[in-house]
Amino acid sequence: MLSQTDRPASLSDALRRRRQKLAAQIPFPVLLWSGQTSSRNFPANTYPYRANSHFLYFAGLPLYNAVIRLESGRLELFMDDPTPAELLWHGDRPRRDQIAETMGADAAYPISRLKGFAAGAATIPVLDAATRLQQSHLLDRMMTPANQLQDMDLALATAIVELRLVQDDWAIAEMRRAAAITIQAHQAGMAATPQAKTEAEIRAAMEQVVIAHNTTCAYNSIVTVQGEVLHNDHYHHAIQPGDLLLADMAAETEMGWASDVTRTWPVTGKFSGTQRDLYDVVLAAHDRCIQAAVPGVEYQQIHLLACQVLAEGLVDLGILQGQPADLVEMDAHALFFPHGVGHLLGLDVHDMEDLGDLAGYAAGRTRSDRFGLGYLRLNRPLQPGMAVTIEPGFYQVPAILNDADRREKYRSVVNWERLEQFQDIRGIRIEDDVLITEAGNEVLTTELPTEAAAIEQLVKSS
Amino acid sequence: MLSQTDRPASLSDALRRRRQKLAAQIPFPVLLWSGQTSSRNFPANTYPYRANSHFLYFAGLPLYNAVIRLESGRLELFMDDPTPAELLWHGDRPRRDQIAETMGADAAYPISRLKGFAAGAATIPVLDAATRLQQSHLLDRMMTPANQLQDMDLALATAIVELRLVQDDWAIAEMRRAAAITIQAHQAGMAATPQAKTEAEIRAAMEQVVIAHNTTCAYNSIVTVQGEVLHNDHYHHAIQPGDLLLADMAAETEMGWASDVTRTWPVTGKFSGTQRDLYDVVLAAHDRCIQAAVPGVEYQQIHLLACQVLAEGLVDLGILQGQPADLVEMDAHALFFPHGVGHLLGLDVHDMEDLGDLAGYAAGRTRSDRFGLGYLRLNRPLQPGMAVTIEPGFYQVPAILNDADRREKYRSVVNWERLEQFQDIRGIRIEDDVLITEAGNEVLTTELPTEAAAIEQLVKSS
Repeated sequence: MLSQTDRPASLSDALRRRRQKLAAQIPFPVLLWSGQTSSRNFPANTYPYRANSHFLYFAGLPLYNAVIRLESGRLELFMDDPTPAELLWHGDRPRRDQIAETMGADAAYPISRLKGFAAGAATIPVLDAATRLQQSHLLDRMMTPANQLQDMDLALATAIVELRLVQDDWAIAEMRRAAAITIQAHQAGMAATPQAKTEAEIRAAMEQVVIAHNTTCAYNSIVTVQGEVLHNDHYHHAIQPGDLLLADMAAETEMGWASDVTRTWPVTGKFSGTQRDLYDVVLAAHDRCIQAAVPGVEYQQIHLLACQVLAEGLVDLGILQGQPADLVEMDAHALFFPHGVGHLLGLDVHDMEDLGDLAGYAAGRTRSDRFGLGYLRLNRPLQPGMAVTIEPGFYQVPAILNDADRREKYRSVVNWERLEQFQDIRGIRIEDDVLITEAGNEVLTTELPTEAAAIEQLVKSS
Repeated sequence: MLSQTDRPASLSDALRRRRQKLAAQIPFPVLLWSGQTSSRNFPANTYPYRANSHFLYFAGLPLYNAVIRLESGRLELFMDDPTPAELLWHGDRPRRDQIAETMGADAAYPISRLKGFAAGAATIPVLDAATRLQQSHLLDRMMTPANQLQDMDLALATAIVELRLVQDDWAIAEMRRAAAITIQAHQAGMAATPQAKTEAEIRAAMEQVVIAHNTTCAYNSIVTVQGEVLHNDHYHHAIQPGDLLLADMAAETEMGWASDVTRTWPVTGKFSGTQRDLYDVVLAAHDRCIQAAVPGVEYQQIHLLACQVLAEGLVDLGILQGQPADLVEMDAHALFFPHGVGHLLGLDVHDMEDLGDLAGYAAGRTRSDRFGLGYLRLNRPLQPGMAVTIEPGFYQVPAILNDADRREKYRSVVNWERLEQFQDIRGIRIEDDVLITEAGNEVLTTELPTEAAAIEQLVKSS
C-alpha cells in the first residue's frame, strides 16, 4: 500500500475552499446527487457503485444515495442512516452525523427532508435512471441529459467546469496516488508478459495491482496485441512472438480520482528494428508534446505538434513522402494517428465528459470536421492546475488504410510498398498524465519509463 | 486456460432444443432483448457489458443491443452490422449473418425491421432503462419491472422458469467451466493469505485467476475478515493473526453461466480450537445437506436440516441449550444462521431472481414471515437437472445478538457466557454448487476441499 501521508490539509478544508469558489460565481442554491448502483442481471446483483463526479468534487466521499445542498458556501447533507436490514446485510457504517462532521457540513438531514430545500435549486443530472427520476420529481422539471443543459443548470455546469479545470492540492494528491498504483500495474504487466499465453493473463497481472490497493480501474482496460483497435475490449487473443502488447489501463482512487496511462511493449522483451523505429517516432511526438505543454499554450497546438512530429518521423522512415507541414495540412498523419493527442483528466478519466464538450472546448469553440482534428477532446489554452493526458500513437487500422477513397486521396504521399515492411506494427501508443504548473508542467507518471531500452529491460527482467 | 473440449453437441443444437421446448408451452411470439451497457461516470465510460440472462438462454451468445424473436421453434435475429466508426474504435467483428449461422437462426434482419415483427409478442423487461424504453415503444405498452409481470409476459416468464430450472448439457458444461476457474481462484486466495496485509490483496489474488481466464466475477466478491457482514463489499481491513478469512466469490463464463463458492480459512493456516469446533459444526451441516439434496426432496427441508444440524452442533458445544428440534422450532438457530441455506444457480448467481420469487418458489408458495425462514430464496421440490447452492454458516452479528428483544426471547436457550469463549469467530460459511441428478447429485465444486485440515494445508503450503 502506498502512503497517503502527502495528502494536504483536511478534506473539510478542501471542500470548504471548493464551495466558496462556487458561491462566488453562483447566486442560487445547488443540489447534487450521488446516484445509486446500476444492476447487472438482477436487481440485487449490482455493478460496483460509482458516485457522480460533481457530487464527489463537493462531497469528497463516495456516499451512496446521498444529496448535498450548496448555498453561499454552506454545505448541507441529506442521507439516511442505515436500516436494521442494511446493518445485518452490509455491516455497521458511519452514521449521517459522523459523515457530516468529516465533510465539514453545516447541517445534516434525512433524505425525506430534501423536499423542503429544493426550491430554486440548480442541479446536474446523474446517469442512473432511478436517481434521475428522483431529481425530476423533486425539482418538478424534466432532467435533460447532462450534455444538453439549459438555464440555471447550464450556468451551474459552466461554473463547476471553471473550478474543476484547475486541480487543487487535495485533487493532485489523489491523482498522484492513482498514478503511483498505475505505474506498479504497468510494471507488473510487463513482468508477466514473457510467461503469458493470452492477453487476459497480462490484464490479470495488471488489474491485480489495482485491486490489491483497494482501488478500481478508472475505465475498461485495453490490453491487446491488436493495438490498432482503439477501444479494444477483448482479451482472448494468444500472445505470439513478435507481437507488440498495447496496455491502456489505470487506477482510480477510492475518492474517484483517475489516472490514464498507456505503454506498448514487445512481448519477447525485444523490439524488432521496424518496431523500434516506429516506437521512437511515437516517443519523439510524446516527448515534444510534453515539453510544449506549458501555461498559455493552446492544447490544439500540442495536438498539431504531435501530428507534425509524427509526420516528420514517417517521412524520415520513408512511409510518408512530402513536406511534413503539408502532410499535416492534408491530414495525411491521421491515416496513422486518427485520434486526439489527449484530454482533460481528473475525477473522470475524460474529465467532465458527462457535460459533452462544455469542459473540453473553450466557450464558442466546437469540434472540427477535419479528419485529423474531429476526435480532439480538448481545445482550450492550458493553465496552471490543469491535468491532461499526452498520448500520441501510430496505428495500422484496416478500416482506414483499406478505404478506397482515402487510398486514392493519399496515393502519392504514402509509400505503400515501404509501409508493408512495417507489418509487425499494429498499434503503438505512449500516454502519460501531465499536470500543468506555473513553471511549466510535471509528469505525474514519470516514474514509468518510456524509452524503448528501459521498456525492454522491464519486460525481460521478469 | 481450461479446456472446453467437454462441451456437448453444438450451440445451435442446444438452442434449437431450448426453443422447441418453449414452443410446446407458448403459442404466441416472443421477443427477447439483450440490453445495452450502463454508464459509470460519463456515457462513454461504461460498466462491462452483461447481456440479459433470458436472452442469453435462447441466443447463446452475449450479443450487444440485439433482439431475438422466437415463434413455433423458429429463431430470428435482429441486430445491426458495425458502422465504420465502430469498426475504427472497436475493431472488426462477426457480421449479423455469421452470427445468425452460429446460432442456427432461421433469419436475420437489421434492428430497424423489428417493428414489423412485434405484433402480439410477449417479452421480459430488461434492467437497463434505455432498452426498457425501446421495449415499451416497440410493444406499445408500459414495461413493468420483471418481478411484476402480467398476462402473456407472466405466461412467458412462467414457461421460461420451467425450462431454466432444468439445466441441459450445454449449461452444465458451462457451469463446470465456471466451477473449475472458481476452484483455482479460491486456491490462489488461500495461498496468498499468509503474505497478505489486507483483504484487498487476497481479493486481488483470487480475481486475478478469474480475469486471466477471460471470465468475470459472477457477483461482487466478498473477501473479508468480518464474515458476519453477510454482503460485505469492503476490502480495506488489515489481516490480523487469529482472523478467519471468509471468501464468497466465483467466476462467470463468457456466455454468462455462474458459479458461487464460499470458503472460510484461518489467515495463519491454523484454526484455533474454538474456530475449528465451529467450523466442523458448519461443515457437518454442509455435508448432511448435500447428502440430502436428491430428487423429490423439498429444498426447504434441506434448509431445515441445516438448521437442525447447526442446532445439534451448537448444543454439543454448549452454546445453545435444549432439544435441537425445539430450538429450530423457535428459530434459535437463526440467531447464528440468519440466511437461507442456498438458492438456484444458473445464468444468474441467484438464478432468475429478476423475476422475483417466480423461479425460487413453487406455484402458490410465498415467503415465510418466520425469522428463520424468511430469507430462504428457494422453496421447491428438487428435480434432476436443477443446480443449487448449499451454503450453511455461523455468524456473530452484533445487530442480531445485541438486539434487546431477541436477547430476552432467547435468554434461556443461549449460554451467553459460553458464547463469549468463541469470540474469535465472526463468520464461517462453506458453500458449494450442487447439480441434482437422477442418481442423487453431483457437487460441481468438489475438487475444492472443505475439511479443516485440507484447508489449513492449502493456506500453509504457500
